[in-house]
Amino acid sequence: MTVHTEDAAMHGELLEPITPEGRELLRLIETHRPAIAEAAPGNDRNGTFPHDVFDGLRKDGVLGATVPSALGGLGVERLHDVALALLKVAEADASTALALHMQLSRALTLTYEWRTGPAHARALAERLLRGMGSGDSVVPTGVKDIPRDRRLTTLTPDDDGGWLLTGGKTLVSLAPIATDFAVYAQTRVPGERSRYAMAVLTRDTPGLTVMDNWDGLGMRASGTVDILFENCRIAPEDVVLRGLAGEQDLAMLAGQTVSSITMLGIYTGIARSAREIAVSTILSRGTAGAAAARTLVAEMDARLFTMRSAVAAALATSDRLAYDDTGDPQERGPAMMTPFQCAKMMVNQMAPSIVFDAQTLIGGSSFVASHPLARLYRDVRAGGFMQPYTFVDAVDYLSAQALGPVSNG
Amino acid sequence: MTVHTEDAAMHGELLEPITPEGRELLRLIETHRPAIAEAAPGNDRNGTFPHDVFDGLRKDGVLGATVPSALGGLGVERLHDVALALLKVAEADASTALALHMQLSRALTLTYEWRTGPAHARALAERLLRGMGSGDSVVPTGVKDIPRDRRLTTLTPDDDGGWLLTGGKTLVSLAPIATDFAVYAQTRVPGERSRYAMAVLTRDTPGLTVMDNWDGLGMRASGTVDILFENCRIAPEDVVLRGLAGEQDLAMLAGQTVSSITMLGIYTGIARSAREIAVSTILSRGTAGAAAARTLVAEMDARLFTMRSAVAAALATSDRLAYDDTGDPQERGPAMMTPFQCAKMMVNQMAPSIVFDAQTLIGGSSFVASHPLARLYRDVRAGGFMQPYTFVDAVDYLSAQALGPVSNG
Amino acid sequence: MTVHTEDAAMHGELLEPITPEGRELLRLIETHRPAIAEAAPGNDRNGTFPHDVFDGLRKDGVLGATVPSALGGLGVERLHDVALALLKVAEADASTALALHMQLSRALTLTYEWRTGPAHARALAERLLRGMGSGDSVVPTGVKDIPRDRRLTTLTPDDDGGWLLTGGKTLVSLAPIATDFAVYAQTRVPGERSRYAMAVLTRDTPGLTVMDNWDGLGMRASGTVDILFENCRIAPEDVVLRGLAGEQDLAMLAGQTVSSITMLGIYTGIARSAREIAVSTILSRGTAGAAAARTLVAEMDARLFTMRSAVAAALATSDRLAYDDTGDPQERGPAMMTPFQCAKMMVNQMAPSIVFDAQTLIGGSSFVASHPLARLYRDVRAGGFMQPYTFVDAVDYLSAQALGPVSNG
Amino acid sequence: MTVHTEDAAMHGELLEPITPEGRELLRLIETHRPAIAEAAPGNDRNGTFPHDVFDGLRKDGVLGATVPSALGGLGVERLHDVALALLKVAEADASTALALHMQLSRALTLTYEWRTGPAHARALAERLLRGMGSGDSVVPTGVKDIPRDRRLTTLTPDDDGGWLLTGGKTLVSLAPIATDFAVYAQTRVPGERSRYAMAVLTRDTPGLTVMDNWDGLGMRASGTVDILFENCRIAPEDVVLRGLAGEQDLAMLAGQTVSSITMLGIYTGIARSAREIAVSTILSRGTAGAAAARTLVAEMDARLFTMRSAVAAALATSDRLAYDDTGDPQERGPAMMTPFQCAKMMVNQMAPSIVFDAQTLIGGSSFVASHPLARLYRDVRAGGFMQPYTFVDAVDYLSAQALGPVSNG
Repeated sequence: MTVHTEDAAMHGELLEPITPEGRELLRLIETHRPAIAEAAPGNDRNGTFPHDVFDGLRKDGVLGATVPSALGGLGVERLHDVALALLKVAEADASTALALHMQLSRALTLTYEWRTGPAHARALAERLLRGMGSGDSVVPTGVKDIPRDRRLTTLTPDDDGGWLLTGGKTLVSLAPIATDFAVYAQTRVPGERSRYAMAVLTRDTPGLTVMDNWDGLGMRASGTVDILFENCRIAPEDVVLRGLAGEQDLAMLAGQTVSSITMLGIYTGIARSAREIAVSTILSRGTAGAAAARTLVAEMDARLFTMRSAVAAALATSDRLAYDDTGDPQERGPAMMTPFQCAKMMVNQMAPSIVFDAQTLIGGSSFVASHPLARLYRDVRAGGFMQPYTFVDAVDYLSAQALGPVSNG
Repeated sequence: MTVHTEDAAMHGELLEPITPEGRELLRLIETHRPAIAEAAPGNDRNGTFPHDVFDGLRKDGVLGATVPSALGGLGVERLHDVALALLKVAEADASTALALHMQLSRALTLTYEWRTGPAHARALAERLLRGMGSGDSVVPTGVKDIPRDRRLTTLTPDDDGGWLLTGGKTLVSLAPIATDFAVYAQTRVPGERSRYAMAVLTRDTPGLTVMDNWDGLGMRASGTVDILFENCRIAPEDVVLRGLAGEQDLAMLAGQTVSSITMLGIYTGIARSAREIAVSTILSRGTAGAAAARTLVAEMDARLFTMRSAVAAALATSDRLAYDDTGDPQERGPAMMTPFQCAKMMVNQMAPSIVFDAQTLIGGSSFVASHPLARLYRDVRAGGFMQPYTFVDAVDYLSAQALGPVSNG
Repeated sequence: MTVHTEDAAMHGELLEPITPEGRELLRLIETHRPAIAEAAPGNDRNGTFPHDVFDGLRKDGVLGATVPSALGGLGVERLHDVALALLKVAEADASTALALHMQLSRALTLTYEWRTGPAHARALAERLLRGMGSGDSVVPTGVKDIPRDRRLTTLTPDDDGGWLLTGGKTLVSLAPIATDFAVYAQTRVPGERSRYAMAVLTRDTPGLTVMDNWDGLGMRASGTVDILFENCRIAPEDVVLRGLAGEQDLAMLAGQTVSSITMLGIYTGIARSAREIAVSTILSRGTAGAAAARTLVAEMDARLFTMRSAVAAALATSDRLAYDDTGDPQERGPAMMTPFQCAKMMVNQMAPSIVFDAQTLIGGSSFVASHPLARLYRDVRAGGFMQPYTFVDAVDYLSAQALGPVSNG
Repeated sequence: MTVHTEDAAMHGELLEPITPEGRELLRLIETHRPAIAEAAPGNDRNGTFPHDVFDGLRKDGVLGATVPSALGGLGVERLHDVALALLKVAEADASTALALHMQLSRALTLTYEWRTGPAHARALAERLLRGMGSGDSVVPTGVKDIPRDRRLTTLTPDDDGGWLLTGGKTLVSLAPIATDFAVYAQTRVPGERSRYAMAVLTRDTPGLTVMDNWDGLGMRASGTVDILFENCRIAPEDVVLRGLAGEQDLAMLAGQTVSSITMLGIYTGIARSAREIAVSTILSRGTAGAAAARTLVAEMDARLFTMRSAVAAALATSDRLAYDDTGDPQERGPAMMTPFQCAKMMVNQMAPSIVFDAQTLIGGSSFVASHPLARLYRDVRAGGFMQPYTFVDAVDYLSAQALGPVSNG
C-alpha cells in the first residue's frame, strides 16, 4: 500500500509549515503574537511604526529568517513557509506583516543572487545577507517611482568610477528602521543604452532623505514612506546591472513573483482574523441562530478555504520553480507569475468580501473606529494595490497569456 | 539545500496524477477521449447511454481502475488521481464521467471494506472487486430513495435466513450496464432496532426492475434511472449490516466523502472545457480584443485556477485521511467532509459561472441546442444537486461545524 | 397638500399598466394564460410553435394590440404596458412571449413611421398596420444576417423600377405564422453609396424560403428560424430607404430601443415565475425553515424587486422620449439606449441568478427535463444574446458613453 | 394620442425633484454644496461636526425643509424629493447628509402626527414643527438603546403627573446642535402594561448628558453620539403614548419607513460621487483605454442606474402610501417596508461595490487617507448598519413576508 504522507494536505490549505526551518520560524512568531496584537490599535490610530515589536523580532532572529543558515539566518527558503509566517503575523497585525514582508522577501531574492549571480552580485548579496542574518541590517526595497513628477530614478556615472543616484521611491514599507535601501533604478550613461539596475545605499548616505509621510487608509503602522535621492554617491560594487531598459524580459517575472507572492499570506490572515472575530462575537451574543448568520458563516468558511487553497497552490508552483534553473527562464517567469496572479485576483476579491461579511454579521458595533474589524476593513483594501499587479494590469497580463496581445484580437 | 519535490505543485492544481497507477489510468483514458467526445452529442440529444464507450473502457481495464491490483485492477487508490481521471473524461463528456464515477467510487469504498471490514464484509467486497477488476462486474449504487412515495427501502427477514428487499432507488447512474447493484436500505426485524445496511443483488434477481426513465435537463447520457425492488431475495452473505438507524454517526462522513468527492473533478472538467471552447472561438473569430472579452477571460482563468486548487486541496485532505485509521473516526469524518463541502460549495458556484461566461463570450451561437456549450450549460447544473450536500444542506452542515447546532444560537 | 397619484408607484416596479389600453391588453392576456401555460411543455419538448395559442390571440385582437385604434388595433402605445404584457405571457411561457414580441414591437415602430415618416413610408406602414390590426397580418422582422457566410442581405435594382432582395436572416421569431416579413437590408446601386433600407415582402414571394430549422437550447417554441432570399422581387413602394450605410447615426438608437426594450419584460416574467415555483414548492414540502432557504428567498425577492424597478425606469425614459420629436435626434438615441442597456445588463445577470437560486432551493427534482424550472433555466439564458447588445458589445457601448472611444483612452 | 408626462421618467431614476418644493430645496442645497465639500475632509479627519455648514443651512431654511409651509417650513413632503436632496448633499459629504437626515425625517413624521394624531400629539408636533420651521429647533431622534447594558430607556411616572426618563440612546446623529431630542422609550407604570412612547426633552433638561464620543470608521462628521438620561423630568404634554410594548404592530412599519427610507439617497450619492472621481481620474490620466477599466465602468454605470431605479421605486411606493389613510394600517406598514427593504438590501450591496470598483480603477493613490475615495470607502460601509434593518434582520423580515414565520417552515 502506498505511503500517504501528510505533505500534500498540509500544503493544500496554507495551514502548516513544510520545512523544519519554517516550523521554527512559526514557533518564534507565536511568541511575539501577543505583543504584535497589543501594539496594533495604537499604532494604527496614530500611524506610527511598531519599533518595539521589531526590536523583539530582531533579537529573536525573525528579521533574518530567510537568510541562509550559512550566512547566519534561520534558512527558511520555502515561499509557503514565509507566506504562512506572514499570515500568522497578519492575524495579529497586518501592518506589521507588511513591513516584515519587506525584509523577508528581500533576503529571498538576495539569496538567489548569492547562489546564482555573477561574482560581483554575489559579494554584495553576501554582505547584505550577513547583516540581515545577524539582525544588524534591515533592507527594504524601493520599487515604485514617486508618481507626482513621474521622474524616473536614475543612476549616472560620477567622476570616480561610481554612480550618482537621483530620484525618489514611494511606498517603501519598513523604512523607519531601515539601515540600507535596495533601489531599482535605470542607468543613464552617455552613448550607452539605458539598463535596469539595483543600487544599494546605507541610510546615512548624503543626499538620501527618508520621509515620514505615510498616512494611509489602512496599513497605517507599516512605515510605508517616500524616500528621496539627490545625487547620492553609490560605490560601483553596490550596483548590480541587469537587462536593457524597455525590453520585455519574461525571466524577470520569476523574481517579481518571489518578491511579492508571500504577501498573499497577509490578506489571508486578515480574512481569517475577521472570520474569527465575527464567529466568536455572534456566539457570545447568542445570535448565531439567525438564518442569514448561518448562511453567511457557511459561505465565509467556504471562501476562506478556497482562498487558502488557491494561495497554497500558487506558492507550491513558485516553490517548485524558484530554485529550478533547468528550464527556459522566459518560460519560468510566466509559469510562476500566472498562478500568482490568478490567486491574487481571487484573494483581492475574497478577502475584502470576508471582512465585509464579518462586519455584516456583527452589525453597527464594527463601525466604531476602535473595533478590530474597522481596522481590518481598512487594511484589507491594500491588497488590491499591491504590485504586481493591480486588477486592471492583471487583466491585461492574464488575458495576454490566454489570448495573446490585444493587436491579435 | 532542501530538495524541492514536484509533488506539491502537482497536487495544488489538479493537473497531474500523483501515483504511477494514476498516470497509467490517465494514459488509458487519453486513448478513449476522442470516442467519448464523438459519442457525446448524439447520446445527449437522445438521452441514450454510451454503450460502446463503456465497452471500450471495460476492455482496457478502466472500469477496474480503482480495484486493488491484487484483485485484478489497476490499483489506483488516490482520490486525487480518480478525480483527475474523471476531469479528463468530463472534458470530453460529463455524462460519461458521471456514470464512470459510479464504478470507480464503488470500488474505492469496497476496497476499504475489503481491507478493514469484518470477515463477512471482506468476502463480499472481494467477490465484487474481483468481478470489477476483470471487467465482468459493473456495480452502481442506489443511495437515494424514490422521493414520490418516500417509502424507505427496507430489508425484512425472509423465511430462509436471508432477506427480502423492497422499495426503490432513484438517480442510479450507470444502471444500463449494471451487473449488480449495491443498495442502501434499513432493516425491519421484529423486536429489533432498525439498522442501516448495504445489500448487493444481481441484475437478474427476480423482483428487480431497472427502469429506463432518465430524462434529465443535463447529464442525459449518464443512464441515471430508477430501480425498483419487490421482495427481492438477498442471500445473507450479500448484506452488510451497519449502525443503528437514526443515530448520528459522524464516522460515516468519511465514507460519504470518499464516495462523492471525486465528482468535483467532473465539474472542473466541464468548466475547463467551456473555457477552452470560448477562448478558441473568439481567437478564431478575431474578436479577442474586445475589452469585455479580455476581462472575462482573465476572470475565468483566475476562477478556474482557484476552483482547481480548492478541489485539489480537499482531495489532498481526503487522501491523507482515507486510509488512516489511527485517529478518532468521529473526528475523521468531519475532517474529511468539511474541506469537501467547502470545495463543493465553491465549485457549484464557480463552474456554472465559468460556463455562463463562456457563453457570454461567444454569444448567440452558443444558444443553439447542438452547440457544445449548450450541453455544458445543462450538464454543469447537476453539480448543485449532487449528494452530499445540496447548498441548503451544506449551509446547515458548515454552519453547525462553525457555530454549533441552531438551538445553541 | 399635493395630490399623490398612484402613477409613480405603478410605474416603479412594472406591476400595473399605465393606460386604459394597456389594462385592456392585460385583461385579454389573462384569459389566454392558462392555454399558453398548458401548451408550453409540449412545444418546448418538441420545438414546435404554439399555433393554437396564436390563433386565440389573433381572434381576441392581441396580435394587433399595439396598432393604433384608428387602424383597427387596441392602441396600446406605452412601452411599459407592452413590456408588462410580455411579462405576463412569459410567466406562462417565455417562447410565446418572445414570438409575440416580434409582432407587438413591429407595430410600435411602424406606428412611428406612420406618424412621422415620409408619405411613402406612411402608406406602407398604414397598409401593414391595418392588416395587423385586423389580425390578418403577422409581420416579424429579420435583423440579423445569417452568420455563416456573413453575406449581407442586399437590395439591388431590378429592371422594372423595383428591387431584388438576396441574402438571408436568422433568428426570425414568429416566422411559422408570418404573412409578411420586414427585412433590413443594404442597397447596392451602381454609382451610388449603399444605404440602409427596410424591405417588406409577403410570405408567398417567389424566392423566399422560410426554414424550419430552429433547435434552440431554450425558447424552443418561439419559431425562431432562418429565412432565405433568392432574388425576391420587391415593389418600390415596399422599400423604405434610410441613411447611408456605414455612417454612425445615433438617432437610430431610438428605434432600436423601441424595437427591443420590451423584451426585458420577458426575462422579468421568467424570473418571477421561477421564484413563485420555488417558494410554493418549499412551502408545500415544509422545508421553508432552512437557514439557506430563508436567505436565498430574501435575496431573490430583493433582486426581483430591483430588476423590476430597473426595467420600469428604463421603460419610463423610453416612453417619455419615444414620441418626443422636439429634441436633437442624435441625443435622443443615446438617451433612450443608455438606460435600456443599463437595465439589460442587470436583467441579464439577475434573471439567470434568480432561476439558478430557485433551482437551488428545490434541489434535484428541478433537474428533470420535464420540471418547469428546467425549461426556465434554458429559456432565461436567451436574454444575454438578445440584440442590442450582448454583454461584450454593451461594455463597448456604455464605456464609450462614459469614457469616449477607446482611442481617447 | 396620450399625453406622455415627464413624470415617470423623472421618478424612475432619482434624478429630478417631483414637486416645486422639492425643486426649491435642491436649489438651496446647490448653493451650499461647495461649502459642504470644502469642510468635509477636515471634519472627517478630526471627527468634528460641521457647525458652520449647518449654520448656513439653517439660515436658508434647509433645516425646516420638510416642515409644512403653514408652520413656517418649505413644505417638502415627498420622500422622493427628500432622498434626492440628501443624495446631493452626500455627493459633497455623506456625514453632513446623515446628520441633516435626522432633522428632515423627524419633521416628516411629526407632520404626520400633526395631521392625523390625537389632539395632544398634534399640539406637541405643531410646537416642534414651528421651531424647526423657523430654524430655532433641531430635533434628532434617539431610537437605539445603548447596547452595553441593554437597559431599556424607560418612562416612569413622577410625583407630579409627568414622567421621569431614564436610560440612554446611541447613534444619535446631529446631536452637537440639537435643541431637543425625541426619544423612544417604554413606560413602566405599576399595575399597567408597558407601552411604547415618544418623549421630547430640551437639551438643557437636568439629567440629560450629551456625550461627545463619536469616533466612527466613517461618517465621522455626523455628530453621532450617545445621550444619557438620569431621571429627566418630562411634562405630560411632551410624551405621546403608543401601542402596548411587545405586541407586534405592523402599522408601525409605515412610520419606520418614512423615518429611514430617504437615507437610501445618501448611499446613492456616495456611489455617484465615487464613480465620478474614478471616471474623471482615469480620463485625466489617459488610462481609460484599458480593457478592465472599460468593463468596470460599464458595470458600475449599470449598477448605479439600477440602484437609483430601485431606490426611486421604493420611494414612489412610500410616497403613495405615506399620506394614504384609506387602507388597513396593518397592510400599509408591510406594503411600505417591503420595497424599502428590497431596495436597501441592494443598495447595501451595490453602493459599496461601486466605491470598491472606483478604487480599483484608480489604484493605490486612493489608499492614501486624504484621498476622497478613502473617505467614501469608510462612509459607504455605514449603510449596512442603518436601521431598519441590518442584513441579518432584513433576511428575517423579507423571508417571513414570503414564507411566513420560521415555525411554519
